[in-house]
Amino acid sequence: MGKQLTVEQQFKNVLKEQNAYREAISLAQWDMRTKIPRKGVEQRSEVVGFLAEKLHLLETSDHVKELMDELKSTTSDEVLSKTVEVSLETYEKNRKIPNEEFKEYVMLQSKSESIWQEAREKADFSLFQPYLEKLVDFNKKFANYWGYEANIYDALLHNFEPGVTTKTLDKVFPKLRNSLTDLVDRVNQSDVKPDPSILKTHFPKQEQEAFSIEILNSMGYDFNAGRLDDTIHPFAISLNQNDVRITTRYDEEDFRMAVFGTIHEGGHALYEQNISDKLSNTPLATGTSMGIHESQSLFWENFVGRNEAFWASHYELFKKYAPKHFENVPLDSFYQAVNEVKPSFIRIEADELTYPLHIMIRYELEKALMNSEIEVKDLPHLWNEKMVDYLGIEPKSDREGVLQDIHWAGGDFGYFPSYALGYMYAAQINNVMMKELNMNDIISSGNFIPIKEWLTKHIHQYGKMKKPLEIIESVTKEQLNPDHLVKYLTDKYTRVYNL
Amino acid sequence: MGKQLTVEQQFKNVLKEQNAYREAISLAQWDMRTKIPRKGVEQRSEVVGFLAEKLHLLETSDHVKELMDELKSTTSDEVLSKTVEVSLETYEKNRKIPNEEFKEYVMLQSKSESIWQEAREKADFSLFQPYLEKLVDFNKKFANYWGYEANIYDALLHNFEPGVTTKTLDKVFPKLRNSLTDLVDRVNQSDVKPDPSILKTHFPKQEQEAFSIEILNSMGYDFNAGRLDDTIHPFAISLNQNDVRITTRYDEEDFRMAVFGTIHEGGHALYEQNISDKLSNTPLATGTSMGIHESQSLFWENFVGRNEAFWASHYELFKKYAPKHFENVPLDSFYQAVNEVKPSFIRIEADELTYPLHIMIRYELEKALMNSEIEVKDLPHLWNEKMVDYLGIEPKSDREGVLQDIHWAGGDFGYFPSYALGYMYAAQINNVMMKELNMNDIISSGNFIPIKEWLTKHIHQYGKMKKPLEIIESVTKEQLNPDHLVKYLTDKYTRVYNL
Repeated sequence: MGKQLTVEQQFKNVLKEQNAYREAISLAQWDMRTKIPRKGVEQRSEVVGFLAEKLHLLETSDHVKELMDELKSTTSDEVLSKTVEVSLETYEKNRKIPNEEFKEYVMLQSKSESIWQEAREKADFSLFQPYLEKLVDFNKKFANYWGYEANIYDALLHNFEPGVTTKTLDKVFPKLRNSLTDLVDRVNQSDVKPDPSILKTHFPKQEQEAFSIEILNSMGYDFNAGRLDDTIHPFAISLNQNDVRITTRYDEEDFRMAVFGTIHEGGHALYEQNISDKLSNTPLATGTSMGIHESQSLFWENFVGRNEAFWASHYELFKKYAPKHFENVPLDSFYQAVNEVKPSFIRIEADELTYPLHIMIRYELEKALMNSEIEVKDLPHLWNEKMVDYLGIEPKSDREGVLQDIHWAGGDFGYFPSYALGYMYAAQINNVMMKELNMNDIISSGNFIPIKEWLTKHIHQYGKMKKPLEIIESVTKEQLNPDHLVKYLTDKYTRVYNL
Repeated sequence: MGKQLTVEQQFKNVLKEQNAYREAISLAQWDMRTKIPRKGVEQRSEVVGFLAEKLHLLETSDHVKELMDELKSTTSDEVLSKTVEVSLETYEKNRKIPNEEFKEYVMLQSKSESIWQEAREKADFSLFQPYLEKLVDFNKKFANYWGYEANIYDALLHNFEPGVTTKTLDKVFPKLRNSLTDLVDRVNQSDVKPDPSILKTHFPKQEQEAFSIEILNSMGYDFNAGRLDDTIHPFAISLNQNDVRITTRYDEEDFRMAVFGTIHEGGHALYEQNISDKLSNTPLATGTSMGIHESQSLFWENFVGRNEAFWASHYELFKKYAPKHFENVPLDSFYQAVNEVKPSFIRIEADELTYPLHIMIRYELEKALMNSEIEVKDLPHLWNEKMVDYLGIEPKSDREGVLQDIHWAGGDFGYFPSYALGYMYAAQINNVMMKELNMNDIISSGNFIPIKEWLTKHIHQYGKMKKPLEIIESVTKEQLNPDHLVKYLTDKYTRVYNL
């Protein structure tokens, strides 16, 4: 018989088990989205379900709860104490939902995703409507189990952006929305008409990939702790800090998809690769929230990748890989074209300036739904009305309207605001970084490591040790402030469109 | 409260759990050998260890034992009854080893593999010797726990080829060895001197891959239930019947590596892809033994892939992908070159005729070791002596001698005979198939599906429902018989070398 394990040792063993399940699940998912043969999908879904259930059991075990309660009052170790705090939150959150309801919900999610797919293909909202109604009802019920202070929607927001409430959002979103719609109006009236058709030429995948890899290396993405693959829907996924993978999509007729997509996912990946080793094998070893994650990807994609200095200094490198066609495209026209503003229907294809308006629409509809101010059946026409109000265009079908995103089919209500929050965070972070680093010189040098190091020092290393608003406030010395994003976009597009 | 589950339902749930762990482990291993970034390896090894332990616990649980005992005496279902039989064998085998010894052994294995790697690089057997001594001692101890009738080595053979004993092998191996050494002598004295240098020219990976894929398709390998990747050490791995992956290695200066390697692994994969759906989610849904598995890969590699009719009918197709150089290589010279016999040091690079002699050496040494007739420290010089005796060449260092294979470092004693058994099985199967199918026509047609279907009907579908010798006897209506392999090789090389 060995020695009795201490409570701390027992808890750390549980954490290791949880992490092993997490890595196995992440790998299975990565494989499903990149490599799995078609016929293997069904069995794999069951394997992922099984592993997820095992993880869930460990997260909600009474025995583990006892260990955590004990440690909560005895440990003085900072990482351990935060680990207990975060794990207790997960425990409470999961335990508040009755087992039977949780199982029913999981089955509904998986069924709804496949129905949504069909509904989107057929552009027929009525197929999806009954499922969405149930999903909304479940989410309302869960929100009530979890509890909230001011608004039922806050309970859902908390899952993606802890600390952020409808009150926070209602302070910043309308301001952002008004500024952006004004700016879009001015852009629409400008005589400057960027011509994105000059970007469209056959650009072989291999060359796009080679250029993307050069940029990832400049960013400091560690290929010894990650890899780049090809997918339909680009994503970044962390198996652990030493194995953070990204994927991108190659459109051989439009390089923008892969190049900006890779920089975006690379931003997510840098965050995960640079979390402190001290947090390894704890649930703290991942990004602190969806919003902070998106701040990293959008920072790299927009503030670096669509930056004037970036293209001024990298256009020659780009042309080394690009087809000859670009020899006849002047830098100015190229830069304008990659920064064209044009209201469009599909969120993930939106430009830098109109993107946040797509998020506003979803936020307003979700909040109203959860507060029972509107009904699921009203979503299609409300969606279209808002599109006309904010973007001046009307979807011709629900496929390019209310049915475009998978989020609701997966039951993810409260997720969308993170995209706009991340963008505001990014602008706020950029504002500080510009004071501390000579950004133009760094971006022009082609060696972005100082930026990566700055982000690691201020954000990445902490993982979940700090909450999102804690990060923003400690880095920027101010609260969430939409002015920085408005100023960034106004300055940039005033120059691009000669306003 | 739901209804009480029956014993059968409970057992089937356990099987599902076991299979989920198996798939997660296989995927993690496939990824480690093909895609994982360097820094991810350490953590991944722990994840695999954790999942393997969970599987082990399920396989050795007292509760599961009770379910099996109950079912053993009550079920009349053929698949369930065989599943119980096979699972009980695993249970007994694992339970006979004390937990502490098993853990110590697992750690020794993993340590030994890395020491072996170092020893091989430095060609220094003395580094590896103490580890190998411990591994041999453990295997002797385990063999005694498991029990055996005539020879301690039988207990180890049983792990890889149930039903085959030293008595079986000692009846066939000497005969095979003598015939082959005679044949090799005659080949050496022939005036025919194939010139493999005509095969060596730069052959881009992409083109080799395209040709390999054409052949895999002709064999009936289902790419919707598998994929082909690039590795250093080629292998086939089954996640389940609908996801059976193969890898190959591309040497751009010698296409033989990839082309014959792909056909070989394709043979393994066809076996796993074509196991009956009735065996899904049971431990029966895999090849019945290492030997039968190898019979499938060697059948395709040698009896099809190195066949005269194959190249007569596929050389034009080959030239479509191959460099221009081959326009000047006549079919005859090409066929002779890919069938050159030349004693060599490294087993996995050996030709079709000398290959079994490499296996004899390992078998004789393993058997003597386990019977304490020789000691670990004597292995290097005994190995070299046997190389001179059987192949007429002497390794210049232990790197190309006793240190070349990983098997012993992993504690796999009793495995090597499967390679030679598989080869004899393949020849025996080929002999029957030639009577039932018009092999020349089929091979010349480029559509090998009738061969795949024949193998599925007689072998693949059964998975572990039949034991290896049961398969051989039911397919060939005779016992293990080395004459077929001797005849095949004699006929073939008499023609190739004009003996």
